[in-house]
Amino acid sequence: MTKKIFFTPGPSALYYTVEEHIKTALKEQVMEINHRSKQAEAYYQSAVEGLKSLMSIPGDYQVFFLSSATEIWERQLQNLAIQHTFHFTNGAFSQRFFDFAQAWGFNAKQAQAEYGSLTAFLPGMIPEETELITLALNETSTGVAFPLEQVYAIKKAHPKAILAVDGVSAFPVVDLDFSQIDSAYFSVQKCFGLPAGLGVWIVSPQAMAKAQEKQAAGHIIGSYQSLPNLYKNGIKNQTTYTANVMNIFLLAKVCEDMLEKGISVIRSESNYKRAVIHNAISEHTSLTHFVEDEKLRSPTVSVAKVEGTSSQHFINALATKGLVMGSGYGAFKGQHLRVANFPTHSKEQFEQLADFLQAIEVS
Amino acid sequence: MTKKIFFTPGPSALYYTVEEHIKTALKEQVMEINHRSKQAEAYYQSAVEGLKSLMSIPGDYQVFFLSSATEIWERQLQNLAIQHTFHFTNGAFSQRFFDFAQAWGFNAKQAQAEYGSLTAFLPGMIPEETELITLALNETSTGVAFPLEQVYAIKKAHPKAILAVDGVSAFPVVDLDFSQIDSAYFSVQKCFGLPAGLGVWIVSPQAMAKAQEKQAAGHIIGSYQSLPNLYKNGIKNQTTYTANVMNIFLLAKVCEDMLEKGISVIRSESNYKRAVIHNAISEHTSLTHFVEDEKLRSPTVSVAKVEGTSSQHFINALATKGLVMGSGYGAFKGQHLRVANFPTHSKEQFEQLADFLQAIEVS
Repeated sequence: MTKKIFFTPGPSALYYTVEEHIKTALKEQVMEINHRSKQAEAYYQSAVEGLKSLMSIPGDYQVFFLSSATEIWERQLQNLAIQHTFHFTNGAFSQRFFDFAQAWGFNAKQAQAEYGSLTAFLPGMIPEETELITLALNETSTGVAFPLEQVYAIKKAHPKAILAVDGVSAFPVVDLDFSQIDSAYFSVQKCFGLPAGLGVWIVSPQAMAKAQEKQAAGHIIGSYQSLPNLYKNGIKNQTTYTANVMNIFLLAKVCEDMLEKGISVIRSESNYKRAVIHNAISEHTSLTHFVEDEKLRSPTVSVAKVEGTSSQHFINALATKGLVMGSGYGAFKGQHLRVANFPTHSKEQFEQLADFLQAIEVS
Repeated sequence: MTKKIFFTPGPSALYYTVEEHIKTALKEQVMEINHRSKQAEAYYQSAVEGLKSLMSIPGDYQVFFLSSATEIWERQLQNLAIQHTFHFTNGAFSQRFFDFAQAWGFNAKQAQAEYGSLTAFLPGMIPEETELITLALNETSTGVAFPLEQVYAIKKAHPKAILAVDGVSAFPVVDLDFSQIDSAYFSVQKCFGLPAGLGVWIVSPQAMAKAQEKQAAGHIIGSYQSLPNLYKNGIKNQTTYTANVMNIFLLAKVCEDMLEKGISVIRSESNYKRAVIHNAISEHTSLTHFVEDEKLRSPTVSVAKVEGTSSQHFINALATKGLVMGSGYGAFKGQHLRVANFPTHSKEQFEQLADFLQAIEVS
């Protein structure tokens, strides 16, 4: 049976080398070793070094492994703010971080944009007392990208606040200058093409200091996943609990593969594939771009509004060709098509996808 | 190259069917499907039903999937107590739950026993205002089992308190009557023989009600992993975040395999293997049982004190035969041997292990 090709925006297609790496992991008994053994430490170190090299993460930033990006929302609230948070929300995921802040009792404010758009950053918008500012570099539910120059402008305007960047479906494709942000995170089942079950948290010295400051002021910053405890274990190349060692091993391997391919090749292929799918959406009479402003369209998740029929019509037609497409998120289910453009997807797959899309008729 | 046999108490040897199931998962693209798809829901449902059937969990108890048993310590504190907790501590893991309660600001009391022993439960020992009582059914660091009749006596004496049972290295070998406890949890890399990266939380109606009561009183019970939110997703057979779908699939498969073998066969084989390793420890002139009281010796983790040399001497000698043995936990590293007796380990492997142990000379 031919395998399906997943264009869903996460979980998505495995990175094309992962199946072989899983077989190697079984052979080398990676899933059986102790998580505090030298062998596990070597995987941890290799994954950290690979990520730092691949995404040019500054040497004095920490990289920690947790269970998911969802968990990292909570850990950021526990470690990086005492009271005041501010959230750019423009989709289900950026909104959920704001909801978490409210659930945990923070004085949380938001700049809420219509889904498919974005509130532009303007000086004076964010209250001066804000400790933690959050935004999604790539809002996976709507396909809106946060322009990098705006990310950097926010930090420049609020140098004392911690700027947290959701890179879930953006990294390593989006070329973020980490030195201009404080906290960034992603889960591995998107662009890295791994099985779900691991979150990665990248933390600046300023963010590390904020957690210590909060603790020193007598506030609770958590237990095993507090930043000081993550650091205490991290410098030994260890996780704070029995983590998903297999995924850390796979992440190290995929970083090696991506480094060998070259991040600039990955990024330029991504641009090409984006152009192909954008063109296919523009040319189809029943599809329009959900994100009207071209400058805000995500490099990794393209969202098309379907007119004259349900998006299920397209999903079903593509399924007959073995292609699995995402539908709209939440309330947009049935109205949108979401197409992941991740490093594992080849140019040829995108060209074929565009051809198939074009041939789908809406009667 | 012959594979090593891991007798380490977690991560440990994979259950003997897991490698094939991982290959099936790759073939069926289990790691690529959406975690909210019908296919993923079917794995979830099958894992829950398998666990309920295997361990005779009452029908009105909930089974939830989180990232680790460590996480479940925190979630229990957030959901099942407002202020007063009580902890039976007799090893690194039961102690760590107490430490978490302190870190999160609870009024936490403990009955602290010497490692290798246990404080017997006596009426009046636990303050009346206690909301949450915790104990480890099997303290993995020391090999001490909590006698079941004492577990049940605690609940009878404190029916209004939530009784939380750490079954990390005990389930499904220990035959706990879940109707006499409120909260139980384990991680899958011990007796179930799966890759690390999934925790399972079993929750009684009384515990569900406690979380609602805490929330209704105006206290914060968390965000995505609060019991009401776990329930809201759980009734749809969904996790609250993009969880380790592969491991939920594998857990469903291993439950099927264990049900086919029969839990009574698994438990009687476990007894036999325990007798074999206990005898080997008793007979070796350089080994003694760390847990002096025979009634407290764990069915699944046997701990031997090494005399006249370091435990590394034994570990190295067994390594030449391809057997990987655990050393002592924490301060006991170098002094103890820890031997996992999990369902994947065969009677023949234990007989061979006993023979090899016997042949190790200490000069």
